[in-house]
Amino acid sequence: MRLAIDAMGGDHAPKEIVLGAMEAVSEIKDLHITLIGDEKQINPLLTNRENLDIIHTEEVITGNDEPVRAVRRKKNASLVLAAKEVKEGRADACISAGNTGALMSAGLFVVGRIPGIDRPALSPTLPTIDGKGFLLLDVGANVDAKPQHLVQYAIMGSVYAEKVRSITNPTIGLLNVGTEDGKGNDLTKKTFEQLKNAPVNFIGNVEARDLLDGVADVVVTDGFSGNIALKTIEGTANSLFTILKDTMMSSFKTKLGAAILKNDLRGLKGKLDYSEYGGAGLFGLAAPVIKAHGSSKHRAIVSAVKQAKHMVDHHVTDTIKTTVESMEYEKE
Amino acid sequence: MRLAIDAMGGDHAPKEIVLGAMEAVSEIKDLHITLIGDEKQINPLLTNRENLDIIHTEEVITGNDEPVRAVRRKKNASLVLAAKEVKEGRADACISAGNTGALMSAGLFVVGRIPGIDRPALSPTLPTIDGKGFLLLDVGANVDAKPQHLVQYAIMGSVYAEKVRSITNPTIGLLNVGTEDGKGNDLTKKTFEQLKNAPVNFIGNVEARDLLDGVADVVVTDGFSGNIALKTIEGTANSLFTILKDTMMSSFKTKLGAAILKNDLRGLKGKLDYSEYGGAGLFGLAAPVIKAHGSSKHRAIVSAVKQAKHMVDHHVTDTIKTTVESMEYEKE
Repeated sequence: MRLAIDAMGGDHAPKEIVLGAMEAVSEIKDLHITLIGDEKQINPLLTNRENLDIIHTEEVITGNDEPVRAVRRKKNASLVLAAKEVKEGRADACISAGNTGALMSAGLFVVGRIPGIDRPALSPTLPTIDGKGFLLLDVGANVDAKPQHLVQYAIMGSVYAEKVRSITNPTIGLLNVGTEDGKGNDLTKKTFEQLKNAPVNFIGNVEARDLLDGVADVVVTDGFSGNIALKTIEGTANSLFTILKDTMMSSFKTKLGAAILKNDLRGLKGKLDYSEYGGAGLFGLAAPVIKAHGSSKHRAIVSAVKQAKHMVDHHVTDTIKTTVESMEYEKE
Repeated sequence: MRLAIDAMGGDHAPKEIVLGAMEAVSEIKDLHITLIGDEKQINPLLTNRENLDIIHTEEVITGNDEPVRAVRRKKNASLVLAAKEVKEGRADACISAGNTGALMSAGLFVVGRIPGIDRPALSPTLPTIDGKGFLLLDVGANVDAKPQHLVQYAIMGSVYAEKVRSITNPTIGLLNVGTEDGKGNDLTKKTFEQLKNAPVNFIGNVEARDLLDGVADVVVTDGFSGNIALKTIEGTANSLFTILKDTMMSSFKTKLGAAILKNDLRGLKGKLDYSEYGGAGLFGLAAPVIKAHGSSKHRAIVSAVKQAKHMVDHHVTDTIKTTVESMEYEKE
């Protein structure tokens, strides 16, 4: 398998990206990685060049760039060139830890969509209490979604959960304001009816308060609500950890208690650390495109590489294509 | 002030409701409360009848009732009669800890709207790390909102924050998928433009991950997204407390650490306990209608009573009415 990686995207680029790439090729057989970025910065980090090469470019899209414009204007940016490697068949998939919006634009305009999929979806796997995790899509690729888009998300999520996460007959829930049939806004009411006839294991409406309990293997929602849910989980967890830390550092007594619990509490934070789940897949594109976390360190890059490899090895893109082609559903 | 309270709504009704009502009249001067419900159950709980009376009814709307239908058919339900006391001028405000949807229906169909407000909003005050709290509206009264509705929420929230929570020139944020101007879906983009000209201290878009940091005093959003945000906060906090508890009970060592921290950690949970903030106001109605938490104990009822009293004393309803009347804004 050949993989293109944007070496310049992310908070710890290029160092952690390059380290992760080297680890990945040493751990995974028959993997070749093309790193795209500034060779003056990448070369000193490369202690082993086996199955690794570099495409040099000095152009970079930053977190401050306006996504669509940046992809159009910075044609030689590392992120854009990574997508181009896929488009032109020199790579089977690509990864970036850079500007999410720019990667979505490059995915859409450079890599292109799967026929039959109207809109790609940004699809992270989030932690659950039981450690299994669940797939949430879309979390922001498409903020004005139609029912048919959510049905396509359900199909894509189902294929991914089955092929990559090895879940048999994965359960699909629709994020809604109540669990009863008939609940919701115009979008979710219409989507509910269409999902009943879709080729997925639809279990009905699910509520946001049950997400981390693992109420479904795949939860579909429009990109606006999904983004709110994702960022509320992150924000609430961070706030609680802040309060917990402040509480534990507040007196000699609490510091003593904290010292005893230290290692176990570290495990708690680890439970919620989703770097081990890989990055967020941009589903619906003609080839796997993975958005690694902006804060990715080398192990998160290795996870993202494994995720891309699973998607390629298990023909996720082709299966989505065939499933979508075979179904009949109402389009607006 | 005269207050009507549904004595039969909530997980701990009628006991905690009645206890709370007795405490409220003993703490607050010139307050008269009418308890509505089954006198056979209420009477034995009443150890002091000063400034308290009962309207007897045996009909009750339960959590399982379909809201709109229940309000139409169960015309003598305690919740409906409480709203009727307000409508007919015998009470200045009403409170229920029962079926949220039914209270919204009773508010809309029995109490009625403020002229100029198209849709009422369910508006809880949520905790923040710094203990100040913020008002989030709407969290589910209106799941298919238009820009003009969100502008009205901003005005109602601003008046409430200023009059009841004594915040000078309260900041108003628009819940969105990014903080930059121009971000969002069709609804938030249009709302953003209208809020710039509204008579409120609009500070722009705010992200869900910053809510508990107190990024704004009032955060406006459509009822669908607000419901997702609210329930995600609840769900994430609950999940984290579950994991924390499991971690602390996992071994002798962790139990020792937990024992040392016990009292301080209780404070942590208290920080996030919003019963002290009162209930969720149903803003936009012709009189204050307060939805107390379903799990309300007597102190939460007292808080809800104080909240209703503040709204009445500071003429929140009239101020909203005058502000809405005085402004010009685009209606769809």
